[in-house]
Amino acid sequence: MLKVALAQIEIIPGRPDLNTQTMLHQIKEARQQQMEMIIFPEMSVPGYFLGDTWEQITFLKDCCAYGEQIIAASIDICIVFGNIAMDWSKVNDDGRVRKYNACFIAYQGKLMGNDNFPYPFRIKTLQPNYREFDDTRHFYSLRKLAVELGKNITDLLQPVNVILSRKKLKLGCILCEDGWSDEYAINPTNIIHENGPVDLFINISSSPYTLGKNSKRNRVFSTQAQLVSRPLVYVNNIGIQNNGKTIYSFDGLSTVYNEQGEIIADCPPFFPALKCISLDLSKNEKKDLASAKPTTSSSTLGNDMDIANIYQGLLYGTERFLRAIGMKKVVIGASGGIDSAVSAALYTKILGPDNVLLVNMPSIYNSQTTKNLSARLAENLGCLYTIMPIQEAVDHTIQQLSQTPIINRSTKEELHLEVTPIVAENIQARDRSARILAGVAAAFGGGFTCNANKSEMTVGYSTLYGDQAGFLAALADLWKHQIYDLAYFMNTHIYKREVIPQETIDIIPSAELSFDQAVDEGKGDPIIYPYHDYLFKAFMEHWNRATPEDILSWYQEDLLEEKIGCQQGLVKQLFSTPKEFIMDLEKWWKLYTGMAVAKRIQAPPVLAISRRAYGFDHREAQNGTYFTANYRKLKNSLLKDK
Amino acid sequence: MLKVALAQIEIIPGRPDLNTQTMLHQIKEARQQQMEMIIFPEMSVPGYFLGDTWEQITFLKDCCAYGEQIIAASIDICIVFGNIAMDWSKVNDDGRVRKYNACFIAYQGKLMGNDNFPYPFRIKTLQPNYREFDDTRHFYSLRKLAVELGKNITDLLQPVNVILSRKKLKLGCILCEDGWSDEYAINPTNIIHENGPVDLFINISSSPYTLGKNSKRNRVFSTQAQLVSRPLVYVNNIGIQNNGKTIYSFDGLSTVYNEQGEIIADCPPFFPALKCISLDLSKNEKKDLASAKPTTSSSTLGNDMDIANIYQGLLYGTERFLRAIGMKKVVIGASGGIDSAVSAALYTKILGPDNVLLVNMPSIYNSQTTKNLSARLAENLGCLYTIMPIQEAVDHTIQQLSQTPIINRSTKEELHLEVTPIVAENIQARDRSARILAGVAAAFGGGFTCNANKSEMTVGYSTLYGDQAGFLAALADLWKHQIYDLAYFMNTHIYKREVIPQETIDIIPSAELSFDQAVDEGKGDPIIYPYHDYLFKAFMEHWNRATPEDILSWYQEDLLEEKIGCQQGLVKQLFSTPKEFIMDLEKWWKLYTGMAVAKRIQAPPVLAISRRAYGFDHREAQNGTYFTANYRKLKNSLLKDK
Repeated sequence: MLKVALAQIEIIPGRPDLNTQTMLHQIKEARQQQMEMIIFPEMSVPGYFLGDTWEQITFLKDCCAYGEQIIAASIDICIVFGNIAMDWSKVNDDGRVRKYNACFIAYQGKLMGNDNFPYPFRIKTLQPNYREFDDTRHFYSLRKLAVELGKNITDLLQPVNVILSRKKLKLGCILCEDGWSDEYAINPTNIIHENGPVDLFINISSSPYTLGKNSKRNRVFSTQAQLVSRPLVYVNNIGIQNNGKTIYSFDGLSTVYNEQGEIIADCPPFFPALKCISLDLSKNEKKDLASAKPTTSSSTLGNDMDIANIYQGLLYGTERFLRAIGMKKVVIGASGGIDSAVSAALYTKILGPDNVLLVNMPSIYNSQTTKNLSARLAENLGCLYTIMPIQEAVDHTIQQLSQTPIINRSTKEELHLEVTPIVAENIQARDRSARILAGVAAAFGGGFTCNANKSEMTVGYSTLYGDQAGFLAALADLWKHQIYDLAYFMNTHIYKREVIPQETIDIIPSAELSFDQAVDEGKGDPIIYPYHDYLFKAFMEHWNRATPEDILSWYQEDLLEEKIGCQQGLVKQLFSTPKEFIMDLEKWWKLYTGMAVAKRIQAPPVLAISRRAYGFDHREAQNGTYFTANYRKLKNSLLKDK
Repeated sequence: MLKVALAQIEIIPGRPDLNTQTMLHQIKEARQQQMEMIIFPEMSVPGYFLGDTWEQITFLKDCCAYGEQIIAASIDICIVFGNIAMDWSKVNDDGRVRKYNACFIAYQGKLMGNDNFPYPFRIKTLQPNYREFDDTRHFYSLRKLAVELGKNITDLLQPVNVILSRKKLKLGCILCEDGWSDEYAINPTNIIHENGPVDLFINISSSPYTLGKNSKRNRVFSTQAQLVSRPLVYVNNIGIQNNGKTIYSFDGLSTVYNEQGEIIADCPPFFPALKCISLDLSKNEKKDLASAKPTTSSSTLGNDMDIANIYQGLLYGTERFLRAIGMKKVVIGASGGIDSAVSAALYTKILGPDNVLLVNMPSIYNSQTTKNLSARLAENLGCLYTIMPIQEAVDHTIQQLSQTPIINRSTKEELHLEVTPIVAENIQARDRSARILAGVAAAFGGGFTCNANKSEMTVGYSTLYGDQAGFLAALADLWKHQIYDLAYFMNTHIYKREVIPQETIDIIPSAELSFDQAVDEGKGDPIIYPYHDYLFKAFMEHWNRATPEDILSWYQEDLLEEKIGCQQGLVKQLFSTPKEFIMDLEKWWKLYTGMAVAKRIQAPPVLAISRRAYGFDHREAQNGTYFTANYRKLKNSLLKDK
């Protein structure tokens, strides 16, 4: 038996000082509990998402010095931890000093593992270079090192030999992505095991939460443990980390799998934990693989595709981000609509009603219905509330813009600007956010929230410096239908009463920026969410992005609803002719790849929930709209047919 | 002799349709001029910076289909061009279909080169993964392919054998970064030559303009040609490409080096060109290397560190960006200060005075001096001009914010917000940009510019949704001292008269947001540009970023001015004690790594000029400020000493 502690700590990115403190405290605790080994997550000393901080030599040295403190603490306990590892005598491909994303194994004040490896640490082999990850920019992989050394990678993937209180052990130490090797030519787990045999596999990770990831994680690691027929300890961190545009929460869910791939211990999501277990390392016969099944973790909250899981990620990520930037108060523009209501309910849960100020900012276009709903929301939540009408200021702006003469210096003519209805709509939106909310937030001593959802973010259905503004777009990775689900869930499961008025859920969503958007007349947003949510998702979230060419060919083959996942029969109901369908498709594609890109460049950070959030996981260039040649052919043939 | 045409074309990123048109036109032209070969830049069909468009299968197929048109056009002329190359039977490490950044060599309607290589094209070996580049996210490198095939990379780096009108030629075809191999373990040029010998080297590139790059480029390729003693043709594109946050211009400067490394032909910067030459491929004896010297291109405008070169890049990039987004008119907030004046002079040069509207927006804090200067600037440039005072609106906002009661629903109390002086300053800045300029721009039918410079961008000395807003921050990669140089240069060399009033250059720079910033009393910005420009540059632009630890140790060793490049003696003049020095250092470091990060996340796109611009080449996380343990030690010892 081996006594192992899983240290599921909260890592503060860029703070090796604080992380080292946390780690030393956990080591002390584990030693008191007579543990023989303690395992920390990947990059536990520096944090993982640090932008280009890796280009600061002094920071690298600082991380190494803190790492030394951890190594020195390994008296009578073996410490497995993640840190940046330096080879000051070599360079990366960019000419900067050589950096490895490494796993250190320390015991009795010394590093283990260089009896069969060039360094006294292990190096990440597979580096994720998709989604939000940027490993290859900074870290040299074991694959590259193998080529540099003229060695076969299989010779380098060796277990770490340790002797703990007279037990000789072979540890298979791998880092995060090394365990997700499905698509790679190399499977580090298998190779290390063949070079072993290994007694225990350890995967140290820093793996962000996304919806549905935990089920996949359990399938992957359960299968791995089964295939090599060895126990596997997976340790992941909690906390949040960001790369500027996108904020990721880390759910921990550190787990121990036995050699049958069954979960024998796990840590809760989003909570710090020091899980101490006794692990049976005696080698049993390999079980019949066909009978063993991946098991799901007990501590996840229901099915992790559930709205409850979304809420959990949202609450944790938002709370931690507020804490990280030191924000204790927020101001929310409350329109009476669904997005701001959900936002208010979320922030009130985190900060308490006295620290949330709802501001209703009516113009002549706002209905009594939504004004009442906004007041009722504040009433239900017990938040601070105020009404600051915008009409006077908007009238002043329109007057100033249209009546101030513009002088043409060459012709000596005086011109006047015309404020068209669409210009006036945006003036209202900016008046609310940039004039009132930003000022109120500064005076209140906090920030103001951006309540945008993913549907409007996709097509830029918002005003820059208007409703798109704010310090954080907490809901911007949720489609409109998920916002509705969340409203229902918060009323029924979190507040257990109707804090978000049912009428707010029932009315038509509308910006109320003109009489054409009158909610009481059932006039609202141009986005038809039950269809467009799924269309936009196909553009944006599909692993291979759908384009109008895909959409149109699915439409032609009558496969569209199935392919994008919306309700069957909906498309025919909405569009009576291919022409109508095509006009709608092109309109939104142009917005998605056109003006919306320009808006997203200046959007607030987005909290990631889905498998692809806007920001660093959706790299985009302001290149304008493109239709492929095949799309144009398909379109012509469809329009000719009818 | 080989008749070769260098096709320095403008590539429109994401528009294979338009690029193919351009290419077919150039091919026709080259054929008319009896050329035997035409060479296009890297990724000439699709463009290079496309964000995640590479994840659209239909786009990839579209690029391949356009590539087929180019191949079909290779009757009686050999066409060397860049395109995405697909292997639909394989996947990348992310599980998406296999993509190569490839060089195609077509002749008589067929692709050459698979007699000694697995594919009928050549694959980029070295992939830049630093600065603004993202190659490894999308493209599979030849290094990875070698590992996958179990081959030595030297066996794969083979010349392309072609027979052109009975001439048997071995072409060394490499792509962009393959020629910049200094820091890599592999030198593709040398290896291909050893596998040859090669008759002619061809480097197809898509290499963005940055200040000083052309001298380096000439050194690199001249040396390469000398070392292998073969002629080398370098073909680079013009145009602009962007990755959302940062816009890059491409200067072309396609060049032919003879086997002595001398430039024997070149194309002008930032202009399309079809350069037709006759190249002597007969093998001469290797010359004495010591006597051969890299030569600089004749067509670069003087020393390429010059302000003239900056102006050229700025003008081209801004003009092309305006064209790309279809913007024909701009609105500029003209304060009478230097940044907006330089911005106005630049945009007027591009769009003409009738399409540039200068708006002066005085409050009670604006001096008659700057108001007059703003009017004089408009007069000098002949721009449209208007004055829209903000005081009335600002007073209304302050009154509304401070007088509207806020209701606490639990205590039934009424609260009132206090608008402090700093809150009032930001209200003014937002009133100007989000209320007036954004509205004016929309009514005028254009966008409004962000006139921020790099110094203020570094420390966030600007207001979000205020002076930081705009559709493009054209000057935000220039330090304040470069803005002054540019003002002088534009007056003397471009306009050849004083369009930017000398007084605008002479007065103290100031935001004029309070009486503490009165220009007539010599009160202005807190940034001391002659020192802080260089301090900020050390934080931001140094290849290995400087941190307070570096700065403080240089200060202690009296090396600071030398290390950061500011005027000798300045530091002692500005700070009489270490304590003062440290307070200043920490203040700006905290801003740079704190609030300024949050602001930059929502900043407009920046036009790149320097070797590191904000945006995608300066990846950053909103992680707050950190001081290393060594910094804290050093600080304590310095403060104790005195």
